Amino acid sequence: MGDKYDVAIIGSGVAGLAAAVYCGRLGLNAIVIGKEKGGTILKTDIIENYPGTGTISAQKLIDNFLKHTVEYGVEIKNDFVEKVSWSKRSCFSIKTKKGKVSSKTVLFATGSAWKKLGVVGEEEYRNKGVHYCALCDAPLYKNKVVVVVGGGDAAAKESLLIAKYARKVYVMARHSLKGEGVNMERVKKEKKIEVIENVNVKGIKGDKFVTGVVLDKVVGGSKEFKTDAVFVDIGHVPLSSLAVPLGVKLNRKKEIAINKESKTNIIGVWAAGDVADTKFKQAITGVGEAVKAIYSIYEYLNGESVLCNCVDENC
Amino acid sequence: MGDKYDVAIIGSGVAGLAAAVYCGRLGLNAIVIGKEKGGTILKTDIIENYPGTGTISAQKLIDNFLKHTVEYGVEIKNDFVEKVSWSKRSCFSIKTKKGKVSSKTVLFATGSAWKKLGVVGEEEYRNKGVHYCALCDAPLYKNKVVVVVGGGDAAAKESLLIAKYARKVYVMARHSLKGEGVNMERVKKEKKIEVIENVNVKGIKGDKFVTGVVLDKVVGGSKEFKTDAVFVDIGHVPLSSLAVPLGVKLNRKKEIAINKESKTNIIGVWAAGDVADTKFKQAITGVGEAVKAIYSIYEYLNGESVLCNCVDENC
Repeated sequence: MGDKYDVAIIGSGVAGLAAAVYCGRLGLNAIVIGKEKGGTILKTDIIENYPGTGTISAQKLIDNFLKHTVEYGVEIKNDFVEKVSWSKRSCFSIKTKKGKVSSKTVLFATGSAWKKLGVVGEEEYRNKGVHYCALCDAPLYKNKVVVVVGGGDAAAKESLLIAKYARKVYVMARHSLKGEGVNMERVKKEKKIEVIENVNVKGIKGDKFVTGVVLDKVVGGSKEFKTDAVFVDIGHVPLSSLAVPLGVKLNRKKEIAINKESKTNIIGVWAAGDVADTKFKQAITGVGEAVKAIYSIYEYLNGESVLCNCVDENC
Repeated sequence: MGDKYDVAIIGSGVAGLAAAVYCGRLGLNAIVIGKEKGGTILKTDIIENYPGTGTISAQKLIDNFLKHTVEYGVEIKNDFVEKVSWSKRSCFSIKTKKGKVSSKTVLFATGSAWKKLGVVGEEEYRNKGVHYCALCDAPLYKNKVVVVVGGGDAAAKESLLIAKYARKVYVMARHSLKGEGVNMERVKKEKKIEVIENVNVKGIKGDKFVTGVVLDKVVGGSKEFKTDAVFVDIGHVPLSSLAVPLGVKLNRKKEIAINKESKTNIIGVWAAGDVADTKFKQAITGVGEAVKAIYSIYEYLNGESVLCNCVDENC
């Protein structure tokens, strides 16, 4: 068993790295454990919606975060967390692929994964016409043709946002497009948007960039449908499973329930960013939640009620 | 009566400007009304705790925000809001010194002002030795003696800044000085700074300018303590009074109560940043709240239940 940290931050995306900076500032002994420095945001090319930096490449933004984290001397461990458990003696034990650390508190900043279509070409053309976030990437397709894949409210909303830029947006739904009433009305009113129902996207084609999708039925005279981009909006999967054995409460979407201070229902456990049950998931909002979490942890560690705060062998 | 905006953002600090950027992205017709572009953060020199930018001057950070806001074409009006009222026809009417605008929703991003000590001499010697902003006024006290009143991180930071100019800085804390770890270490290392704990400043004395403070206990042989200046760093007062006539709920500190989406109790009214009842007030957390507010407003405006959404003369 190694040293006991004040805070173990699980996840090294923007939320985890922002948490690390604040741990450094507040003099907390912290470790960040993540399998990819920078996390999901690096799946995006240009970030136009991080207030404070202006338009910036995701890589440059993450470089800023990492430099900042390093300045504060917080350790970032490239590792994969397999299990988090709790005992009165050890507080939280975090078993990783390469070892084990223990910590008085845990911040889950594990993020989420975009649900994938799972079709040929999806990986190959990722960020070359295949995208998962309209807010992030729609402005790239000014006056272009875009296919949105999905049948839920997210697909409806995303198509509306994309229509602000694109020349034409085709929403392709496996069954039908079922968004919230207002969004559906707006979709109907938006002449740039055309909804194609009962269709499955079976593949994505391209040369350097996406040129089209392959469908399971004939649309417009062919099963090959030309488009400049494909936005996949079939949902997210919050990466919350590590928190479950601790008794951490999830919502129906399996996101970790947090309060305004980013606290979960379990003492000693916080969550922030895409894994948390916050409605509007942006880098900047996740970072704000992470900073609140660290202040809250700082208060907790300076309080008298720290559970499992054993300093000798008698506990 | 001018055009009806989707969103009136009151306050042009970091929270207000971040909100403006997101209004631009989401296609909301917004106006920012504030008396000072950049707001309170410009009273600080160097910002070391805004994740994403690394260490940056406050002015440069605000320049980034302003450039970003301008890129999205959101109007920033340098004006002073005198009153906000609501009617079914006009939605929110915002009366300013120079005119009037109306808007479907309001975001209070009005920030906070420095708290006063409330002792004899404080008003009389204001700007004659009594100050609230080290960045603004510390250079006046080169090789002088300065008293900083306060026990929080702001007092620690301000004393460090003043020590760059002054000969000697006494930090007087009612209980103890509790700053962030990094700042406390810097205070300890700075030989010009002396922390005096468990002391209350009861009054400020002077002739033309401040000559000393009156304490509630003997320090250095007397209850009268000689100093050339007093910097007061005892916290902030939220600037929430404009929200009160709308029925917006405040907490005991007079901060505007908001939920996780930055909504207040009043339909159509949101708040973010230093004016809101969030425990940990940082630029980054205020920005996160502002972004959540704008998403929440976007949802509200796209919903069916917008009050006062009159489009003709019949309402």
